[in-house]
Amino acid sequence: MIRASENQEFYELDSPTLLPKASGFLWNEKMMIHMNCRGYAVAQYMQPEPAKYSHAPNLEAKTFMQPEQPYYAHHPGRFVYVKDEESGEIFSAPYEPVRVPADRYTFAVGKSSIVWQVECGGVLIEMSLSLPKEDPMELWRVKVTNLSQKQRILSIYPYFTVGYMSWMNQSGEYHEELQAIVCSSITPYQKYQDYAKIKEFSDKTFLLADRKPVAWEVNQEVFEGEGGITGPSALREAELSKGDARYETPAGALQYRIHLSPGEEEAYRFIFGPAKNEEQVAQIRSEYFIKDNANGEDGFAMAEREYDQYIREGKGCIEIKTPDPDLDNFVNQWLPRQVYYHGQTNRLTTDPQTRNFLQDHMGMSYIKPRLAREAFLIALSQQKSNGSMPDGIILHQDAELKYINQVPHTDHCVWLPICLSTYLDESNDYAILDEKLPYADGTESKTETVLEHIHKAMRWLASDRDERGLNYINQGDWCDPMNMVGYKGKGVSGWLTIATAYAFKVWADICERGGQAEVAKEYRAAAEATNEVINRYLWDGEWYARGITDDNVVFGISSDREGRIFINPQGWSLLSGAADPEKKEKLMRAVTEQLETPYGVEKLAPSYTSMREDVGRVTQKHPGSAENGAVYNHAAAFYIYALYAVGEKDNAYRLLRKMLPGPTMEDIVQRGQLPVFIPNYYRGAYRQFPRTAGRSSHLFNTGTVPWVYRCLIDGLFGVQGTPEGIRIHPQLPSEWSEATVTRDFRGAKLVIEMKREPGVQSTEVYADGIYLEEGILRNITPDTEYSILVRLPETV
Amino acid sequence: MIRASENQEFYELDSPTLLPKASGFLWNEKMMIHMNCRGYAVAQYMQPEPAKYSHAPNLEAKTFMQPEQPYYAHHPGRFVYVKDEESGEIFSAPYEPVRVPADRYTFAVGKSSIVWQVECGGVLIEMSLSLPKEDPMELWRVKVTNLSQKQRILSIYPYFTVGYMSWMNQSGEYHEELQAIVCSSITPYQKYQDYAKIKEFSDKTFLLADRKPVAWEVNQEVFEGEGGITGPSALREAELSKGDARYETPAGALQYRIHLSPGEEEAYRFIFGPAKNEEQVAQIRSEYFIKDNANGEDGFAMAEREYDQYIREGKGCIEIKTPDPDLDNFVNQWLPRQVYYHGQTNRLTTDPQTRNFLQDHMGMSYIKPRLAREAFLIALSQQKSNGSMPDGIILHQDAELKYINQVPHTDHCVWLPICLSTYLDESNDYAILDEKLPYADGTESKTETVLEHIHKAMRWLASDRDERGLNYINQGDWCDPMNMVGYKGKGVSGWLTIATAYAFKVWADICERGGQAEVAKEYRAAAEATNEVINRYLWDGEWYARGITDDNVVFGISSDREGRIFINPQGWSLLSGAADPEKKEKLMRAVTEQLETPYGVEKLAPSYTSMREDVGRVTQKHPGSAENGAVYNHAAAFYIYALYAVGEKDNAYRLLRKMLPGPTMEDIVQRGQLPVFIPNYYRGAYRQFPRTAGRSSHLFNTGTVPWVYRCLIDGLFGVQGTPEGIRIHPQLPSEWSEATVTRDFRGAKLVIEMKREPGVQSTEVYADGIYLEEGILRNITPDTEYSILVRLPETV
Repeated sequence: MIRASENQEFYELDSPTLLPKASGFLWNEKMMIHMNCRGYAVAQYMQPEPAKYSHAPNLEAKTFMQPEQPYYAHHPGRFVYVKDEESGEIFSAPYEPVRVPADRYTFAVGKSSIVWQVECGGVLIEMSLSLPKEDPMELWRVKVTNLSQKQRILSIYPYFTVGYMSWMNQSGEYHEELQAIVCSSITPYQKYQDYAKIKEFSDKTFLLADRKPVAWEVNQEVFEGEGGITGPSALREAELSKGDARYETPAGALQYRIHLSPGEEEAYRFIFGPAKNEEQVAQIRSEYFIKDNANGEDGFAMAEREYDQYIREGKGCIEIKTPDPDLDNFVNQWLPRQVYYHGQTNRLTTDPQTRNFLQDHMGMSYIKPRLAREAFLIALSQQKSNGSMPDGIILHQDAELKYINQVPHTDHCVWLPICLSTYLDESNDYAILDEKLPYADGTESKTETVLEHIHKAMRWLASDRDERGLNYINQGDWCDPMNMVGYKGKGVSGWLTIATAYAFKVWADICERGGQAEVAKEYRAAAEATNEVINRYLWDGEWYARGITDDNVVFGISSDREGRIFINPQGWSLLSGAADPEKKEKLMRAVTEQLETPYGVEKLAPSYTSMREDVGRVTQKHPGSAENGAVYNHAAAFYIYALYAVGEKDNAYRLLRKMLPGPTMEDIVQRGQLPVFIPNYYRGAYRQFPRTAGRSSHLFNTGTVPWVYRCLIDGLFGVQGTPEGIRIHPQLPSEWSEATVTRDFRGAKLVIEMKREPGVQSTEVYADGIYLEEGILRNITPDTEYSILVRLPETV
Repeated sequence: MIRASENQEFYELDSPTLLPKASGFLWNEKMMIHMNCRGYAVAQYMQPEPAKYSHAPNLEAKTFMQPEQPYYAHHPGRFVYVKDEESGEIFSAPYEPVRVPADRYTFAVGKSSIVWQVECGGVLIEMSLSLPKEDPMELWRVKVTNLSQKQRILSIYPYFTVGYMSWMNQSGEYHEELQAIVCSSITPYQKYQDYAKIKEFSDKTFLLADRKPVAWEVNQEVFEGEGGITGPSALREAELSKGDARYETPAGALQYRIHLSPGEEEAYRFIFGPAKNEEQVAQIRSEYFIKDNANGEDGFAMAEREYDQYIREGKGCIEIKTPDPDLDNFVNQWLPRQVYYHGQTNRLTTDPQTRNFLQDHMGMSYIKPRLAREAFLIALSQQKSNGSMPDGIILHQDAELKYINQVPHTDHCVWLPICLSTYLDESNDYAILDEKLPYADGTESKTETVLEHIHKAMRWLASDRDERGLNYINQGDWCDPMNMVGYKGKGVSGWLTIATAYAFKVWADICERGGQAEVAKEYRAAAEATNEVINRYLWDGEWYARGITDDNVVFGISSDREGRIFINPQGWSLLSGAADPEKKEKLMRAVTEQLETPYGVEKLAPSYTSMREDVGRVTQKHPGSAENGAVYNHAAAFYIYALYAVGEKDNAYRLLRKMLPGPTMEDIVQRGQLPVFIPNYYRGAYRQFPRTAGRSSHLFNTGTVPWVYRCLIDGLFGVQGTPEGIRIHPQLPSEWSEATVTRDFRGAKLVIEMKREPGVQSTEVYADGIYLEEGILRNITPDTEYSILVRLPETV
């Protein structure tokens, strides 16, 4: 069973085997942890690049987080073994590694904590994980309650995996004076030039306890013995060996022996994380476990409270009540948190991809517009003076462009006006256009306005085209590793050309609102000219092609056996205006017939099952995975956004709803995750490999969420800002007869009741009883509450 | 219990828990596999860079093989699960993953095969692994025998782990027509430039059976279920599910159901390895399982036989019979095989370090001198025209210098004369000095003789010195990652200066024998001058210092708290002649007191336990590990060689003997390996961390073995070649009264009996009864057997 808790602050799962990969996600300024319902953990922190303090049992590749992350017996995790000292029976909470089925089990995923209750043979183990607001460390509580009718003697063994820290140097020791296990390592390196970095690393992992244990074990091999991790030999002894690890794989195991009368309980707290040295562990101990504030609260409890506060700051700008309670819960509780995470942490990378960075801060415009403003200025100050944008934005002085950011992509400029427009809608801060910024390849003193920066970006897009007027793709564009379409310098991107037309349109609107009507006209003309080119070269009869290769082969078309249709050119052509009504109907039908699945809209279909050399890497990806035919939610969200833009409210809502796991249990199980976040993709290739279609990637990082938020604001609930105020123009699905939206906007609060009523011909909007022309509420006064009524026509 | 089999072809272990990491090593031209007694495997093959076909459960870092390799529940392995269909009981052979203690267990490590016998509940499982001579694949036999008194119904499940192949694309299917499981993947890459390489990879893993299974499972998660790898849920069903893996972690599991009467047996064969495509698997099937030769032998059986033949070709040039049977077994059976491996495979790298490559072929001079000759010419043709040698030798057109080979080291030139001298001793092929070769930075047509090449190398060494005449260390020299002693360009290496003096001496000898007496004199003078400098700047009163840092700090001296004494400057100073008799006595005493342990001589002592920035990376290594105070056998072997060079026969033999695990069981268990190879190190820091001292690195790659062979040939048994023939000059330890050595030499065979006899004053050598002047047998005729008698003085 899966359910939202009564206060809707938690999503609960009552079995560790129903969704074995179900995870909660916690993060702060320095770290992120995916905590699995069964006790497995994927955690990383920034120093300044991503690093680990709980390692795999072997030498793991340093890479981005993996989709559909496999778990295995020795996967890093946080466990509590429990031994009945009289019977010798053991179990482990939450479930791994012993896998004894619990009599009662709850895994509750909250926004600032993750909580388990595991009852087994009359013993209840409650575990909870929270984080501090800033430091990279885990705050754990473990409570043991005797639910049975008799006195119990138990040994409790918190077991925190440390893993294979380093082939160069690793060890572990218990420090009596710290009540902590401290495991030490040195990061290997080969070039002396790297030493300056290495020496600053927090290469130690500590497990700090608030209570003195009776014994401990720091040596994984000794702990496990021939019993293995599923039944450690050390648990058969009266006490753990109190040994050390010298180059052996370290582990963090403590033992507490307790006598509990019926109903009695005992509580423990632990801190687990990286440290630079023992002094730092001592300081953490003092700060979290020793010093109390005036209320008698120690640092641990304070940190939990502060963290909860910090997460609550990430609330969204709407609260909804609709006929769809699952949607309500997701939008009110979970979606803004995921948007906030992206804007707050920049995906815990020091060189976020430019398009991600801009879109993440498009989302942040709804939550912390000040931070979004700063981000846009940072990005634009890294623009080159020829107008082009870099492949990643450098956020740390030591950062460099890594991985995919070393491969040139041609789409970054289009995101500038598109993302900025949301910031302007929300903040009305057109003054940002006058901010002066340098260029990355210019001098600090030679600055130009944001307006001029974006003009240059638009001109760069207009110039990076072939003789037909189609935009070059080079080694890739948005979320497509089509690295071999245009690497010879000739291939073009259909989507990017369409996106450029849309960017021109959006920029024209911004210019006009910013008082540049003449320039706006030019961009509108450029958009129109681009749309003509699009229709001339890319319309395939029923839908738009994806691109044209170096060898002038058009692809993403009806004669292709695989990769016949791509979602992106279709949705964006609705936005750019390329698609006339007839084309619109045709392409929407094609999408429904060929791309729509029970789990959303696929990115392309049919998935490639073998290499197509003139397309490249996307065709080598697993069918239905990531970009090769997955329900790539980022792209799907954009299609939904486009549907709202052209008034396709029912089509849009249906697809939006498919993006969230549920509402049926069968659907949740097939996707394999709790409905607390939108993953970057669900497995696609539905028509080719139905068994695995729908599976969640389990990745929390995705550009999807700001677009879903925009779909709600600009589309479904129609509460988008304008220069004059806010325009109320809902597009409720036909099946809804009403909805209530509370909208925080420019310091004011709007309580908006939406109702279908008999006799209403077209949407009518009233503010405190007064009819609003064009549905626009003007002259909004901060700290004021407006009561808005929206009368909608009944559904035919 | 551990014992050599009766025919001495196998080393046997009768428990999987006594030496849990005990492994056998098999290799061929394209692959190597470390096969663990419990069923775990570390295998890699060349395509052309090292790659895997059986992967870890997570994304593993691509790196060199790890010392003291940790194993864990989901470590790659080869297992056979056995289920009694009546009782439902399961066990697994060899031991993992179920870990049921066997009633009888043997792990027998041979030179061309590894064999297990595992008896459990009346069922005997015999498993054996061999390889083909050239192709990268494993040849497995599995035999099941009913040893009980009743009819048994069993299901047998060979289970070969495939693991996490790729995040980009992975899948697995059973192919009826091939009787094979084929798992497919695509290696991820990001830059299109890499595609040309990737597309040639053998990214598939196959498990090919000679018998049709009743069912199979290709999906690891489905196979394991909640039972996990230690008790897979799939085994509770009547049949495996016959499913597939689509992006899920693939695995290779087959099921055979058999009815066995008492005493009855059933045999199976499997092939496991990488393939480029299904056609290749079909071809392997046809070649190995379908076609028979004239004797009715199929390709599988032929391949096993050919492989055995191939390995037998790697026999050494001596066979011994001494009062030390463990030494006999090791030297006759195992040592030459390890020497052969190095020369034959170049450690399965495409860019072996130059010093390794030269020393590995020094060893090959004893086994296949033709190959050694080629190797020296390849190395010298990559020399630069300024005389310096590169950090690695490129052996494949696509190879590049990687890892540590990108860090400049200054010692490569010294190995040229040192290694060549053995080749000349063995072959008398002084004509090699006249071979003409180009330089790496010159034109193909501008060639010079080997003689001139090595002159240039010697001149480079003579010039790469500071004003005192000490050799610069730059970022490192031999087997010391002392990367920060001299990176500023000033620091010098004590060892390298001493080694240069020795290289001059060796080169002088070669020049003289090559008819260049005048030049020889010059080198002798240069050696002498160098020795003077050494004694002026590096003698610390009781031993030689290791070097002098950029900031002019002498280190490896008595006033140092850690790293007080290093082995290398001591032994080499005996060879270079720097140490006069008084210094010799002092430094030998210092080595015994400070570096000698029950497991051999440590590289340095005391191990560094914290960073010393002016020394660098070695001080960051784990105390007692690899270069930081380990019994680094390569260095230890050189010290032993030096002891023989100065006639310290008892000292030398004692240390030589410590290099081999045993002879006591306690000693073998502490080291943790079977006595079938010399690992690159045993853990050191004996005086600091005695618990872990002596542990084997379990690494088969080491420059130790050719030096041990030289210790035997030039030292212990004294059967070293000379231009005139061979000089017989044994240095048997005092405790031996006799020994017999059969020596293959330049096509002849010498059967040498060595005996201590009363009344003998100094060594007397007789060939077929005739006294030999200076102990030299001259004018050796190939295909002739010489009977040699060596009369030795009795021990006082």
